[in-house]
Amino acid sequence: MNLPMVLRSLGILLICEALLMVPSLAVSIIYEGYDVFPFVYTIALLGATGSAGLSIKPKKKNIYPRDGFAIVAFGWILISFFGSLPFIFSGVIPSFVDAFFETSSGFTTTGASILTSVEGLPEGIMFWRSFTHWVGGMGVLVLTLAILPLVGANTVQIMKAESPGPNPGKLVPKVRQTAKILYIIYFVVTIVEIILLLFGGMSFLDACIHAFGTVGTGGFSNKNLSVGAYNSVYIEVVISVFMIICGANFTLYYQALKDGIKSIFKDEEFRLYIGVVTASILLITFNIHGTIYKSIWESLRHSSFQVASIITTTGYASTNFDLWPTFSKIILFMLMFIGGCAGSTAGAIKNIRILMLFKIMKRELLKIIHPRAVYVLKFGGKVVDDDTLSEVLVYFFMYMMIFAAAVLIISLEGKDFATTVSSIAATLGNIGPGFGMVGPIGNFSEMTNISKLVLSMCMIIGRIEIYPILLMLFPSFWKKVNI
Amino acid sequence: MNLPMVLRSLGILLICEALLMVPSLAVSIIYEGYDVFPFVYTIALLGATGSAGLSIKPKKKNIYPRDGFAIVAFGWILISFFGSLPFIFSGVIPSFVDAFFETSSGFTTTGASILTSVEGLPEGIMFWRSFTHWVGGMGVLVLTLAILPLVGANTVQIMKAESPGPNPGKLVPKVRQTAKILYIIYFVVTIVEIILLLFGGMSFLDACIHAFGTVGTGGFSNKNLSVGAYNSVYIEVVISVFMIICGANFTLYYQALKDGIKSIFKDEEFRLYIGVVTASILLITFNIHGTIYKSIWESLRHSSFQVASIITTTGYASTNFDLWPTFSKIILFMLMFIGGCAGSTAGAIKNIRILMLFKIMKRELLKIIHPRAVYVLKFGGKVVDDDTLSEVLVYFFMYMMIFAAAVLIISLEGKDFATTVSSIAATLGNIGPGFGMVGPIGNFSEMTNISKLVLSMCMIIGRIEIYPILLMLFPSFWKKVNI
Repeated sequence: MNLPMVLRSLGILLICEALLMVPSLAVSIIYEGYDVFPFVYTIALLGATGSAGLSIKPKKKNIYPRDGFAIVAFGWILISFFGSLPFIFSGVIPSFVDAFFETSSGFTTTGASILTSVEGLPEGIMFWRSFTHWVGGMGVLVLTLAILPLVGANTVQIMKAESPGPNPGKLVPKVRQTAKILYIIYFVVTIVEIILLLFGGMSFLDACIHAFGTVGTGGFSNKNLSVGAYNSVYIEVVISVFMIICGANFTLYYQALKDGIKSIFKDEEFRLYIGVVTASILLITFNIHGTIYKSIWESLRHSSFQVASIITTTGYASTNFDLWPTFSKIILFMLMFIGGCAGSTAGAIKNIRILMLFKIMKRELLKIIHPRAVYVLKFGGKVVDDDTLSEVLVYFFMYMMIFAAAVLIISLEGKDFATTVSSIAATLGNIGPGFGMVGPIGNFSEMTNISKLVLSMCMIIGRIEIYPILLMLFPSFWKKVNI
Repeated sequence: MNLPMVLRSLGILLICEALLMVPSLAVSIIYEGYDVFPFVYTIALLGATGSAGLSIKPKKKNIYPRDGFAIVAFGWILISFFGSLPFIFSGVIPSFVDAFFETSSGFTTTGASILTSVEGLPEGIMFWRSFTHWVGGMGVLVLTLAILPLVGANTVQIMKAESPGPNPGKLVPKVRQTAKILYIIYFVVTIVEIILLLFGGMSFLDACIHAFGTVGTGGFSNKNLSVGAYNSVYIEVVISVFMIICGANFTLYYQALKDGIKSIFKDEEFRLYIGVVTASILLITFNIHGTIYKSIWESLRHSSFQVASIITTTGYASTNFDLWPTFSKIILFMLMFIGGCAGSTAGAIKNIRILMLFKIMKRELLKIIHPRAVYVLKFGGKVVDDDTLSEVLVYFFMYMMIFAAAVLIISLEGKDFATTVSSIAATLGNIGPGFGMVGPIGNFSEMTNISKLVLSMCMIIGRIEIYPILLMLFPSFWKKVNI
């Protein structure tokens, strides 16, 4: 490992975080909250620590894949650590573990909370809490589509097989351009949603907070009843549409600008994603109609919002879906594993992998029927190589194993089956709320500190797609490379 | 597909079933039960239908892999269908769906029951119910270790990588020999257990029933409280030891006879299996000690029995483990997915696949750290080829997808989360009891007919390792091959 380069990169990251905290400081100054100094102290600390890292002058500038993974893993842990300081300094969340949970939940765009009430807290703190979603969402986008390919991270091979438009990661100038295009799309989408939410009667602060939560597919709200607090069909529709948009691959929108909106539907992953959304909405609508809601329209309204919220791993709630029948809850539970599309701000396994897994399964079965035939697996018209396929298969296994291991630890809490299992599905998949005690009207406050740390790690592991954290378990990961 | 050959093979199978029903008829005659004629009618029906199948004279005698799969899939469904007739004719289980559920649960060595009370039923029927476990267990053993390799079934490639002693499936004479050795071991183990259970004070019928349930890793008992009804540490120890023995690869015992008992521990899969058993027993003992049972000895006793029962997919209960803390239940739930060893009568994913999956995962991670290094995956000292590895990965995915699809259907019942999820894990993995309403003191009687059929299919799918049933979904599977 090239430790000096890793430390230097982390220094840059912390300085970025200091700058990204300035808008929240501005909000707290405008509202004259008691959170002004907590932000000032944190920004100062970030600046100092970041500068210390930046001052390291590496002898060699080469970055190897494992250095990239180290930067990613430590980066997410560090920004969550420093990002939690305003909560602690202001006294809004006195416990360090709780504050770390809340901040990693923010940056990883999970939206799981330990706060039992979010109303009445200082505006700057609330802004920062939701702003971490927006930063995290953008971070993932830029990371997976622009930076990771540079360090040779394998996850991007999945994208390479398909990604139309800006082809990620071949040359540095192209990467910079990709990142720039993504920034612009991300900004525009956010601003459009803020404007639309203002039309729905939200205050400017509320509109910002919910737009950050939507575009980052995070799910933090400044209302205890989440989006349900507004009880407005217009707001639910706006947020649903933007959740669906942000759960899809962002490079599709670049392509749509170039080749027309129809080109989006040529994307195999997008078609699966929309197919799963549509099927889930219909199944749940028929299941909850008559039992929970009297009108079909009301059933469709809540079904659509909840499906969009869960599959995009946002986690907003328009109603307490924990009261829905088992069939509907099982569908939502499964959506927690599917998640959004690659190249989006959404988490979980992602549609592209699910699609590939089914294609691999089909090929394996056809091989038995026709042992002498040769089957080539194609994706978006291009042949996918065996390395990528094996990686997708291994990823699925790793995801399930991390899930199982975390469930085992959390089960020591002695909570019921649904709470235990869904708390991991909801954090590992970066969704937020689960079922039972961690359902849409519940929260994670009653868990022990060990559980909260495990869940925080689940959020980070899920967000950075497992590899970086697992690699750290190998002694050879830490060895210095001599070139 | 070579349909005449498939029908002829199924005919032979039904004649075998007729012969295998004779001991049960004998029991019913001895006990002068009202189930004599039901057995006579069924045996006559089996003989007639089997002879009709056998009378078909195929033009070509070639059997292709897909024909083998067709025989396996239809074979298990047919024997379950005909095997359910004595239950129906005798009026013990009047509903066809219930009787089919109970019989497929028997043959697949699952042990899930729709009977709310098993005490007081005619002895012949009870004998037949448990004898299906013994037949099913032997069927699987001979099928996977001797016959399947002949038809080129891929599942056996896993075994090829390791299986010591009689090397399955290279030449027909060798296969016959393998099958013979397995028969003998299976017989000897059964008889030894019957004798040991007689020493424990069981009646001869009870000893037979519980030996069939143990050796076949099935789990049917003729007591409502399962093994717990005897409240005998001796009986529990005997059954535990035999469950563990029958959850391991049977070819190991042949090897042990040849090379000494130590050779068993050289087997990588066996070491993992024993490791998982030991770790689970210890973790559960500490978890239930103090909360459920006052003495550490009592905790160890029930923990050992339950772990052995669940990992070997037998499903006997010495106590109502549904009352245990969540941590212990989650461990048992995970054991439902792991299951026993390849080449045993146990079901579920199996230790050899779990071990390979972890090895593949490790290799995938090491590849990232050392991109230029070449990693060869070895098992039992031999290199495993990429086809086998990809098959294991796909199998894991298929297992989880069948699990998910079945959970979705069963969730329409509207039962609680634990009942819904564990009912599928317990049937797909051929365990028997799950948690909640389908827990050790519950049963499957309250489910709807559709659910019971789905669960019956889960048992069969799990037993014949998914492939045969999934292959039937492809139109090309049914096409006639012209040679």
